[in-house]
Amino acid sequence: MEDLQTPSPPLVLKAQGSFFIGGEKSEQTRTELGGFGPAGHIAVNQMYVRYMVPQRGFRNVPVVMVHGATLTGKSWETTPDGRMGWDEYFVRKGHPVYVPDQVGRGRSGFNQALFNDVRAGSTPPGNLPNILRFSDESVWPNFRFGAKPGAPFPDSQFPVGAVDELSKQGVPDLSFGGIPTPNPTLKALSELAVQLKGAVLMGHSQSGPFPLAAALLNPSAAKGLVLVEPGRCPANYTEEQIKTLASIPILVVFGDHRDIPTGISTRASWQESFESCQALIGRIQAAGGKAQMFNPPERGIRGNSHMIMQDRNNLQIADFVLQWVEERVGKRGGAKK
Amino acid sequence: MEDLQTPSPPLVLKAQGSFFIGGEKSEQTRTELGGFGPAGHIAVNQMYVRYMVPQRGFRNVPVVMVHGATLTGKSWETTPDGRMGWDEYFVRKGHPVYVPDQVGRGRSGFNQALFNDVRAGSTPPGNLPNILRFSDESVWPNFRFGAKPGAPFPDSQFPVGAVDELSKQGVPDLSFGGIPTPNPTLKALSELAVQLKGAVLMGHSQSGPFPLAAALLNPSAAKGLVLVEPGRCPANYTEEQIKTLASIPILVVFGDHRDIPTGISTRASWQESFESCQALIGRIQAAGGKAQMFNPPERGIRGNSHMIMQDRNNLQIADFVLQWVEERVGKRGGAKK
Repeated sequence: MEDLQTPSPPLVLKAQGSFFIGGEKSEQTRTELGGFGPAGHIAVNQMYVRYMVPQRGFRNVPVVMVHGATLTGKSWETTPDGRMGWDEYFVRKGHPVYVPDQVGRGRSGFNQALFNDVRAGSTPPGNLPNILRFSDESVWPNFRFGAKPGAPFPDSQFPVGAVDELSKQGVPDLSFGGIPTPNPTLKALSELAVQLKGAVLMGHSQSGPFPLAAALLNPSAAKGLVLVEPGRCPANYTEEQIKTLASIPILVVFGDHRDIPTGISTRASWQESFESCQALIGRIQAAGGKAQMFNPPERGIRGNSHMIMQDRNNLQIADFVLQWVEERVGKRGGAKK
Repeated sequence: MEDLQTPSPPLVLKAQGSFFIGGEKSEQTRTELGGFGPAGHIAVNQMYVRYMVPQRGFRNVPVVMVHGATLTGKSWETTPDGRMGWDEYFVRKGHPVYVPDQVGRGRSGFNQALFNDVRAGSTPPGNLPNILRFSDESVWPNFRFGAKPGAPFPDSQFPVGAVDELSKQGVPDLSFGGIPTPNPTLKALSELAVQLKGAVLMGHSQSGPFPLAAALLNPSAAKGLVLVEPGRCPANYTEEQIKTLASIPILVVFGDHRDIPTGISTRASWQESFESCQALIGRIQAAGGKAQMFNPPERGIRGNSHMIMQDRNNLQIADFVLQWVEERVGKRGGAKK
């Protein structure tokens, strides 16, 4: 904590705070609630959102930043080595910023009923959802700090000296069977964009495609979509859906070293993910859309990792995204074309 | 969200961000990690902390605000009806504020290995920890909004129209068997106070006694202790421990309507909790200490609930706490006596 770097000048906020989007009631037994008090209803599937609105420039388009698998909104806050996160940087550049925890994780909580039912013996253990976390060892190749644990790429932009602080950002991820289908986060993101009267939706990794899905639920509120290192860009959109996406500015961002084996069962390499997004961009462009790829290595910026918002050059990368927002999305309410 | 009330003037921060305190490595199997990637180590038992440091008055004593059972640091943020939380209010009054999520909850995560072991059949379901949440129905009497669900006390200070937004703050609480003993949050709070070079430690409800325990781990870093509606004040401290606590300013805060039945198995009424704290205050005073009770009804302030930091008069209550800090704790580094 001593290493936290205090920026100057001060951060001047018109407002900050937090709230929830979505959620519904679940009726549960005393046992399902842990037995301290009477049976009844609890809120489940709500999405926690923390926000900061800058004093200067608060009429700029709001930006919603969604984290990836096994992580929380912490991804966008202070970096593992104590530098400024994208949340504050975008605020300092004049954008209201909204950082959720996905439904089922962090301050959004999860539905514990099934766990207590299994404990009590009324439900078989096999009904439990699989809960995901990534080992430190798996993170090195999968997040592309280096091909092997402890051996960073010579040009790695990730602050590998602070990799243990990234490890602490990990939380159990119940997205794979522990939350409803479709993922309530998608509707919550769409509703958040509506309540904000339009927003840029940004996803990362597992949530990389979420902005696309949220935009399809309510296209007019999605002023721009930023897909940061998405796990996969969908290949199964209908022509109608592609036409809708072609009406929205879309930016896809990938880092470097995408060709190494991830060691993860869901993809052989991040190049697969990159190519799936190139294919989607091609379809959207063919429909007249403005989707585009931001590929830093092509511009001579090397060594960016999967955690590009935490890399040492994270603000340089942010500047490209901010410039794209300025050029393609413009001010709140009025999209530039 | 439309109801969020924007204060003016702007909030001017010297710094804001987040970090982790504590944590250790746990070696886990591929199955325990959810099977997506290789076996290895993850961080567990770390404590997430979010902070805001005001530009003016940042040399004032920092205040650490810890939430209660089934809740997260959200307790101290924007109230359920969209008013300013104690986190921002204390910052606006010149105090750096640090808001953790207890180990095992929210952005601090929890250790999922046992859950995946039970799912895989290698551990009996009975080994699962009991996971606690409070039903909406149980919250009405237990948090003292009214004696029965839906029927608020005529003088209730809680914004009962927004009680569903409080419900959304609930997260599964693994404190009862799902985290190590002693609770790692206690050591983390003590370490946080040391890193801050002294802090006022504030706990609420389940964490109400935590400031006492953290102070006993490192008395010199605990510049003041604020116990807000503690579930229980310990009765088993040694004379040596009482002597230590007598060297630290201590304030206990309780709301109104403490005599109604809670409906919760751990206490018949909150008056029991109040009396346990009066007993502790008595012991500390007998040892020459400055511990004291802040009992709003005695001052004609009626209707405060267990969630006093979210009540409609939450800033009035905060003013009493701030005045106590000013008088009893003083500036960072130098305690007034």
